[in-house]
Amino acid sequence: MSVPILLVLEADPPPRLGRLTGRAEIRYADDRSLAAELPHADALLVWDFTSDAVRHAWPGGGPRPRWVHTPSAGVDRLICPEFTDSDTVLTNARGIFEQPIAEYVAALVLAMAKDVPGSLELQRQRRWRHRESLPVAGSRAVVVGAGPIGQAIARTLRALDVEVALTGRTARPGVHGAEDLDRLLTLADWVVCAAPLTEATRGMFGARRFALMRPSARFVNVGRGALVVEDELVTAVTERHIAGAALDVFEEEPLGPGHRLWDVPGLIVSPHMSGDTVGWRDRLGEQFVGLFELWSAGKPLPNVVDKKRGYVPSHDS
Amino acid sequence: MSVPILLVLEADPPPRLGRLTGRAEIRYADDRSLAAELPHADALLVWDFTSDAVRHAWPGGGPRPRWVHTPSAGVDRLICPEFTDSDTVLTNARGIFEQPIAEYVAALVLAMAKDVPGSLELQRQRRWRHRESLPVAGSRAVVVGAGPIGQAIARTLRALDVEVALTGRTARPGVHGAEDLDRLLTLADWVVCAAPLTEATRGMFGARRFALMRPSARFVNVGRGALVVEDELVTAVTERHIAGAALDVFEEEPLGPGHRLWDVPGLIVSPHMSGDTVGWRDRLGEQFVGLFELWSAGKPLPNVVDKKRGYVPSHDS
Repeated sequence: MSVPILLVLEADPPPRLGRLTGRAEIRYADDRSLAAELPHADALLVWDFTSDAVRHAWPGGGPRPRWVHTPSAGVDRLICPEFTDSDTVLTNARGIFEQPIAEYVAALVLAMAKDVPGSLELQRQRRWRHRESLPVAGSRAVVVGAGPIGQAIARTLRALDVEVALTGRTARPGVHGAEDLDRLLTLADWVVCAAPLTEATRGMFGARRFALMRPSARFVNVGRGALVVEDELVTAVTERHIAGAALDVFEEEPLGPGHRLWDVPGLIVSPHMSGDTVGWRDRLGEQFVGLFELWSAGKPLPNVVDKKRGYVPSHDS
Repeated sequence: MSVPILLVLEADPPPRLGRLTGRAEIRYADDRSLAAELPHADALLVWDFTSDAVRHAWPGGGPRPRWVHTPSAGVDRLICPEFTDSDTVLTNARGIFEQPIAEYVAALVLAMAKDVPGSLELQRQRRWRHRESLPVAGSRAVVVGAGPIGQAIARTLRALDVEVALTGRTARPGVHGAEDLDRLLTLADWVVCAAPLTEATRGMFGARRFALMRPSARFVNVGRGALVVEDELVTAVTERHIAGAALDVFEEEPLGPGHRLWDVPGLIVSPHMSGDTVGWRDRLGEQFVGLFELWSAGKPLPNVVDKKRGYVPSHDS
């Protein structure tokens, strides 16, 4: 019996894939060649998870891989109706990014509470200006998105004695349903968006919801850029409907040098790095090799995405 | 019986002191008039805790107040041998600054781990440059100073799953003695200085100890500037003996615009603000009024500083 064909969307070999030598025939594709290679692949590793080539190539003719893995938490760049309707199993990188993203959110919350950006700017100007900072313990956060990343963020903020409400699509123990979100927003000092990008969540943070928030509230997005109507966030920050925001994700990535988001006072911009701690690529490679071993042995895979919903369903949802 | 004379070192009335109307004769002094007023005061509130006028005025002639309160954690600016040898009771602001300072340290640790300064600088330059960040969970910290502030810092870092060793003057349960410090420094990712400034601790962080630290380690000082030999810290950071540092306190405060510490790459400077969350002055006024009520009723005071040691001894030391 011949070994399965593993197609990798990426120019350079991902770490750890050498371990599959002899157990898979590994082929590489780029955005341009993907459509031609797709019918021959048994499995597809979308190592370049910033590409939307899969979504574009998938509807073409011919057989499709039985298994697709993306080394990311979100699957919004991959999914198209034909893929969703197929029998192909889609897995994601659940387990890799939770803790790093939770720490990154804590870093942003604390940086805003303690005005680290203000201190750095004053340092640049060589100006000593004492300011009062905000306490974090006892403040209130709403974390939007009750998947493992939202859960980790909630856990980390609670460790700092922040009172956290977690909201998801539907209510379950410890999680508020979407119907509670607007009310919770009116109470929050921190609103953290860590939701999957789906047709239900696209643009969920716009002028209406920023208007519900307190003028002292700050908004953090570590989910996907398109969860936020960016122009309306700029207005909300600029006109002080809210006190500030930090974005790690954007509708257009990378942000071009001329993008208006770079210099909105009160808005912190970082380059989609919240989940990426030293060694992350190795861990993703390791995870894929583990999944490949299960898959090639015909065993059930963890981290299977519900393609209709656009995320891995929680065990207790 | 006449009411006691409360001398306040400060131009403007501190918050909450109105509550003492009729129960104290409140007089105000500045650095210049303090020496002349001191012999007439029953109690002294050093509201301007940045002043060193008490240390200079104390040795002069005449009676001295029976009680001195400083609305700060450290008492290094007040103490002189004559004060130490006197029967005057000295109290400090124990209980007010612990949680804010602990959060501030967490903010600095997370900011350095996630390179928030780098992201802000790149944002200023409108440059998208993805970097890998450091995990905080599982990293190791040494917190130097096992008083309530050091304890709070340890608690907060542990909540972020940092492995924390706390060091004090003498070993006790949960606290390493000074003899363990050098060994612990060789293992730490984060070294946080929150010790009181005494003759035993002055200059405790200099070239020798920075050389013990790992090249990847970062140093944070929220204690007192003179705990650190600043020039040797600059050398350690500049020559990459350590990876970075954040100072909230300095030998000379405020830092003048020409001070060399403002622009050392890898060094974060903030203006002695770690403990000062919104409402801190009200809380300090509140605390003093409570202490005054105990004192004027002849009851024992909490927060009594061991003037010889230079801090409030821990209950379990």
